[in-house]
Amino acid sequence: MKIEIAENAGFCYGVMRAIEIANRALKEYKSLYSFGPIIHNPQVVEEYEKKGLKVIETLDEADGPVLIRSHGVPPKVYEDIEKRGLKVIDATCPFVKEAQRYAKQLYDEGYKVVIFGDNEHPEVKAHLGYTNYTASVINSPKTAASIKASRVGVVCQTTQSVERFGLTIGELAKRIRELKVFNTICDATEKRQEAAKELAKRSDIMIVIGGKNSANTRKLYEICKENSRNAYHIETEIELEKNWFDGIENIGITAGASTPSYIIERVYKAIRDIVNG
Amino acid sequence: MKIEIAENAGFCYGVMRAIEIANRALKEYKSLYSFGPIIHNPQVVEEYEKKGLKVIETLDEADGPVLIRSHGVPPKVYEDIEKRGLKVIDATCPFVKEAQRYAKQLYDEGYKVVIFGDNEHPEVKAHLGYTNYTASVINSPKTAASIKASRVGVVCQTTQSVERFGLTIGELAKRIRELKVFNTICDATEKRQEAAKELAKRSDIMIVIGGKNSANTRKLYEICKENSRNAYHIETEIELEKNWFDGIENIGITAGASTPSYIIERVYKAIRDIVNG
Repeated sequence: MKIEIAENAGFCYGVMRAIEIANRALKEYKSLYSFGPIIHNPQVVEEYEKKGLKVIETLDEADGPVLIRSHGVPPKVYEDIEKRGLKVIDATCPFVKEAQRYAKQLYDEGYKVVIFGDNEHPEVKAHLGYTNYTASVINSPKTAASIKASRVGVVCQTTQSVERFGLTIGELAKRIRELKVFNTICDATEKRQEAAKELAKRSDIMIVIGGKNSANTRKLYEICKENSRNAYHIETEIELEKNWFDGIENIGITAGASTPSYIIERVYKAIRDIVNG
Repeated sequence: MKIEIAENAGFCYGVMRAIEIANRALKEYKSLYSFGPIIHNPQVVEEYEKKGLKVIETLDEADGPVLIRSHGVPPKVYEDIEKRGLKVIDATCPFVKEAQRYAKQLYDEGYKVVIFGDNEHPEVKAHLGYTNYTASVINSPKTAASIKASRVGVVCQTTQSVERFGLTIGELAKRIRELKVFNTICDATEKRQEAAKELAKRSDIMIVIGGKNSANTRKLYEICKENSRNAYHIETEIELEKNWFDGIENIGITAGASTPSYIIERVYKAIRDIVNG
C-alpha cells in the first residue's frame, strides 16, 4: 500500500502571495475587509475571519482597508473604494493583473475583445471591466462561432485548460481576419493538472482536496475521475470514508490552488491512519 | 448520363486580373517579359509566348517592361528591375499584396513572422522577402512545435486550406505568449474546393483540369480522389481516355485557378463526344 501526493498540489504562487499580503495587513490594521472570500476555501476563510479579515459582499459593509483577492476586480471597484476614502490592499495575482492589462490594451487598440473562460468566474468578471464590459466570453470551439468581427483580441482566464484553449483559438482563426491572442493561461494550473493525471493513472483511488466552490479543484477532480478507477472531492479529512480504501493498493492525493498545505498534510495523515487500521 | 461542371471552377479573380493586365500591356509594348510563367498552366503560357510575352528566369534576360505575375515577388525584385531602368507591370493579386503588407507590418512590429504555406511556392518565397528573410514557414500543427518565440505574427499563403490553418494556429496559440494572426486565405480556393467536393460525392468520375505544376489543381485532384470513385488530373482534352467513361453515369468536371474557361469548355465538349460515341 502506497500513499502519494501529486507534485504541484495546493497553493499556487498567486494564492500564496495573497495569503502573505493578508497576514501582513492583519498585523498592521485592526479591521480588514476582504471583497469576496480571499480564496475559494471555506476552511481558510473561516480561519482568517477569526484573525479579523471580514468577508464583505458590498463596499457598504467596509469601514477600513479593503483587500482585493487574487482573482482581481474590475477597475470600478478600485475607484469606489477610493471614493469612500478607504485604503486598497491589492492582492491580485500578478499573472491575473497581466491578463487585465492585456484586456485593456486590446480594447484600447480597437479589437473586439474575447475572454476565454467561464462567465461566472470572478477573474473573468474582473477582466470584463477592463474592456468597459464590451467583451464576449467563450469557452469552447463551438462558442467561437458566435464571434463576428474582423479584428478580434483574446485573453484568457489564467486557470483554463490549454488544450481547449488551442482548439478554440484554431476555430476563431478560421473565421477572423485579424486575431491577436494573449495566452495568459498560468502553467501552475497546467502543471498541477498534468501531475494529477499522471498520478491518477498509477493509482486505484484519487483524493482531491479543495473548496467545493473552487473551479480549479472541480476541474482537477474531473481529470482524476477520468484517469483513475475512483476519485473523491473533499474539503477536509472529516469527509474521508473508511470503505473507500478497502482492498486498495495505490492511493493518490492532489489539491486545488486554494488548498493550504496544512490541510493536505491532515488528509494524508488521516488516510494513513485509516489504512493502517 | 450527366456531365456537370463544378461551381467556381477555373480562374480566380487574381489570375483573371493578371491575364487582363498582360493583354493590355501586350497592346502597348512590343516586347514584354514575364518573371516566371504568368500562371501555372503550360497551355496559357505557350499561348502568351506567341503573343509576345517572354518567360524569363533572371532579369538579365529582360530588355523591356517586366510583368510581375499574380503570385508576387520579393521587394528586391522591384528594386532590381528599377535599377536596370526597366518598367514594372505589376499583376500581383491584390489579396496576395495584402498578405505581403501584413507580413511586412508584423516584421516591423517586431514579431517573429511565421508564414503558413508551402516552402517552395512562389507566393511564399515572395512573402519571405517582406520579412527580410527572417520568417519561418510551417504548414501543419506538427511543424508549429518548431516555433520558439514569445511574440509570433502569422500570415498565410492565400491558397492554403482553412481547416489545416485552424489546427496549426490552435497549436501555436498553446505555446506562444502573444500571437497575432492575419487570416489571408482567399475564399475563392475554399469555395472551389467545397464545390468540387460536393460534386465529387455525386459523381462516378471527376475530371480535374489544370497545370501539373499547379499546387491548387493538385490539391483539387486530391479532394476529388477522396470523394469520388475515380478522378483524373489532366491539362487538356488530349489526355482524356475513352475507357475511363465505360458504364459511367455521372461525370463531374472542375479546374484549378490557372485554367482558362476555353480549356474547360474544350474538355467538356470532348467528354460529351466520347460518351455520345
